[in-house]
Amino acid sequence: MKLKLFLCLLFGIFTINTFAQKQQPNKLQIGQINRGYGMFIHFGVNTFNETEWSDGSLPVSSYNPAHLDCDQWIKTAKEAGFRYVILVTKHHDGFCLWNSKYTDYDVASSPVKTDVVAEVAKACKKYGLKLGLYYSLWDRHEPTYKNDFPAYLGYMKNQLTELMTNYGDICELWFDGNWDKKEEEWKIADIYKYVRAMQPDCMITVNHTIGKPTNIHAIQQPLDYKDGNPIRYFPVDFRIKDPNLARWDDPKYYTYNGKSYYLPFEHTLCLSDRWNWFQKKAILPARPLDELEELYYWCTANNNIMIMDVPPDETGRIRTHERFRLLELADRLGIRDGKSPLPAGPVNLTFDKAVKATSETNGHPAKMAADYSLETYWEAKDTVASLEIDFGKSTVFDRVSLMENADMKDLKDGFSYIRTFKIQQYELQYFSNSKWDTFYTGDLIGAAKIINLPEKITAEKIRLKIMAASGHPSISHIAVSENSTRGLRRYDPAK
Amino acid sequence: MKLKLFLCLLFGIFTINTFAQKQQPNKLQIGQINRGYGMFIHFGVNTFNETEWSDGSLPVSSYNPAHLDCDQWIKTAKEAGFRYVILVTKHHDGFCLWNSKYTDYDVASSPVKTDVVAEVAKACKKYGLKLGLYYSLWDRHEPTYKNDFPAYLGYMKNQLTELMTNYGDICELWFDGNWDKKEEEWKIADIYKYVRAMQPDCMITVNHTIGKPTNIHAIQQPLDYKDGNPIRYFPVDFRIKDPNLARWDDPKYYTYNGKSYYLPFEHTLCLSDRWNWFQKKAILPARPLDELEELYYWCTANNNIMIMDVPPDETGRIRTHERFRLLELADRLGIRDGKSPLPAGPVNLTFDKAVKATSETNGHPAKMAADYSLETYWEAKDTVASLEIDFGKSTVFDRVSLMENADMKDLKDGFSYIRTFKIQQYELQYFSNSKWDTFYTGDLIGAAKIINLPEKITAEKIRLKIMAASGHPSISHIAVSENSTRGLRRYDPAK
Repeated sequence: MKLKLFLCLLFGIFTINTFAQKQQPNKLQIGQINRGYGMFIHFGVNTFNETEWSDGSLPVSSYNPAHLDCDQWIKTAKEAGFRYVILVTKHHDGFCLWNSKYTDYDVASSPVKTDVVAEVAKACKKYGLKLGLYYSLWDRHEPTYKNDFPAYLGYMKNQLTELMTNYGDICELWFDGNWDKKEEEWKIADIYKYVRAMQPDCMITVNHTIGKPTNIHAIQQPLDYKDGNPIRYFPVDFRIKDPNLARWDDPKYYTYNGKSYYLPFEHTLCLSDRWNWFQKKAILPARPLDELEELYYWCTANNNIMIMDVPPDETGRIRTHERFRLLELADRLGIRDGKSPLPAGPVNLTFDKAVKATSETNGHPAKMAADYSLETYWEAKDTVASLEIDFGKSTVFDRVSLMENADMKDLKDGFSYIRTFKIQQYELQYFSNSKWDTFYTGDLIGAAKIINLPEKITAEKIRLKIMAASGHPSISHIAVSENSTRGLRRYDPAK
Repeated sequence: MKLKLFLCLLFGIFTINTFAQKQQPNKLQIGQINRGYGMFIHFGVNTFNETEWSDGSLPVSSYNPAHLDCDQWIKTAKEAGFRYVILVTKHHDGFCLWNSKYTDYDVASSPVKTDVVAEVAKACKKYGLKLGLYYSLWDRHEPTYKNDFPAYLGYMKNQLTELMTNYGDICELWFDGNWDKKEEEWKIADIYKYVRAMQPDCMITVNHTIGKPTNIHAIQQPLDYKDGNPIRYFPVDFRIKDPNLARWDDPKYYTYNGKSYYLPFEHTLCLSDRWNWFQKKAILPARPLDELEELYYWCTANNNIMIMDVPPDETGRIRTHERFRLLELADRLGIRDGKSPLPAGPVNLTFDKAVKATSETNGHPAKMAADYSLETYWEAKDTVASLEIDFGKSTVFDRVSLMENADMKDLKDGFSYIRTFKIQQYELQYFSNSKWDTFYTGDLIGAAKIINLPEKITAEKIRLKIMAASGHPSISHIAVSENSTRGLRRYDPAK
């Protein structure tokens, strides 16, 4: 007993010491975590030119929305249950969505002179949403960027003064495009201090906050998110690494000059099934509802937050089918019109459980279908395959969600892509009383399939049997849970 | 004014006269219509021999359920919201599910001697469900059937006495297999009277009640269901024509010897996506939930009723995945545990509206996608196609359901089949304020896709744009409606 007590005390001291080195989330971070779910808006000269990125040479006259309706954007955001909006005020092309004194490459010089930042800010006030802004550090239009970089840093500060003083409270500021220069050239500490003085409550960050930039075309696991990893830009208030998905259990503490800082992660997700950030002329499909529901739970778990890109089209409005999909998701989550608190998904019972499969391809073992990453996946060698999860004890569930990993085909623009899913026929079985029993038969899974069972199952194991597929079946995640474990989502000090 | 009054009177007299010729539904028919939704149970020697039909030579010893559990069948029926059960007591093979004094080709001579009719009757009483029975006129085992047909008619009467006197109240009696003899040979009037004397409240019918038998392998429109068509077997109390689907507006009055009789239609549907009536060893998929919901509305509309075949397997139990599908459907319909009245679907606004398409194949014009038959369909000539419905006026809706017509591949048994659906990418658009707007993007439709919109649309037209298909896209029905027009289902004297 005495030894135990001694060990407890020792452990207690050790914990306190470790704890002492780590900075706790501050009030602003807790506020941001609780805000949780935002709409990301890409709109600008690219919208009118069928492109995701442009080099600053697209004519300002091409920006020409016939029915610009920023009120409709924010009304939709409110109805869809979003708590805040992040507006792209200037993308890498340098085109400014507000009337900037410092450039003619802006809305004021275009056929439609409406100050979009002002209109969005007004609508956010009207609908009770917070406003955040995105500003690209990289600027492919402004001549000083190439000719006189110190002058460009001044240009940026001038524009940031416009953005930070003319549009009321700004809850977040996102810097992007930093990869075009070395980290230190951006003088982030200076900019941070400059912005902070104008907007004391603004959460500021730089993409990608942690780790080296990866090929943004691929979905890659942010393996560099390890507790204690160095912070690339300092200071920052939260992490982004567009377009990666963090691990469900991603750590929160990162270091700068040996000191530990708490940094929540803001996920970025496209509503579009083609993963286009800027709208295109063609009607592109929205992501399936089941996928959006699962991604919402994943991206807002573990004190992380999520913004979803909903780009207005060349008429200046959010498209009906995308608006409807957002409203359907809001109905699923019970947050229509923002009247209810954000929900948390049910507790997933497959994490860390023993997984085996009839076959695996190199680098994609069975366990990756039930690990903490959505970016890893199990892949079978054959078109017929089984994946089995052993709970290790009698387990009750009434919800299964399957997320299939797709074959990706890049589209011509080099950013967006088409996904092809392969599973064509499958069964779900549970193991109880020493035998397997089939409780669900399905054909296609697609990006995600949520199966809510009409009654609870008690089982020791679960098995996905794939009977037909057009290629190697591949599952990025299988979640098993009890619907009754759903709860409300807010900052949880335990995480 | 006087002329109008005269015409009214004249019309009134005419109506009364027509009316006078027609028999109104009787109390038993109204009771049957209100019962509305039943479970059909095929179980017998075929269950153990991988076949739908057999010739009476399968050994009685092959009937051998290891865990026969009739209580589980009826408990499932109750939980799934069914109001009654129709049990196949003897199929064409002649095998009897009860202990019959008149044959050894029955359960009593098999390894598992449980009287299944008795067990089902007991469970129906326990769970408060009505019991109906199916009895095949055709008998491929009983020797008198071929050798001494008058003796066989006596055999039948003896067996019917057993069935009608030993198991309590029987709400329906289904005769089937009649096609093996000429109509008159069955002496239906005699059998009817015989049964009626034992079970005064039993609804009796013969398959197929109206029209000549069709190839039962194909889904064919019962075009022979026209008001005033002759009744093939008389008397009968309701119509069946397994496995056809009646027109939504199918008539109710049929004639015998110049007199008109009211006959509701009882639809028969398989829960199995392979349309197997008897269970097979392999786990076969259940029909998709959206299809079952739409078929329920269709089959129980217009004072018609529906029974769904849910076959127990060779262990003697209803399979978990089929049980779950029934419970999911019950949850959709709000009839779980039979606690709520049966619902009626929303009012379909596409019936009788102007329909056009970019292309049509012979015999499958556009209008067949919005007619009163689920067995007719529109088929396009190209894999890219549009179907447009003009409401003729401004119309409000928040629900669209699409039913795709499949390519059918018969399986080896000659009865069941695999369906292949072809549409791979589509959009739904509405026309309002002189322009088309896309409100939904989808990939596969499959047997049915129900789209509940998150808000109402007001439009003059609706368009289905098919962008990709693996063959000729084909739609058996597109329904547009307002969810608020759902109601409760019961006998409606107006129909």
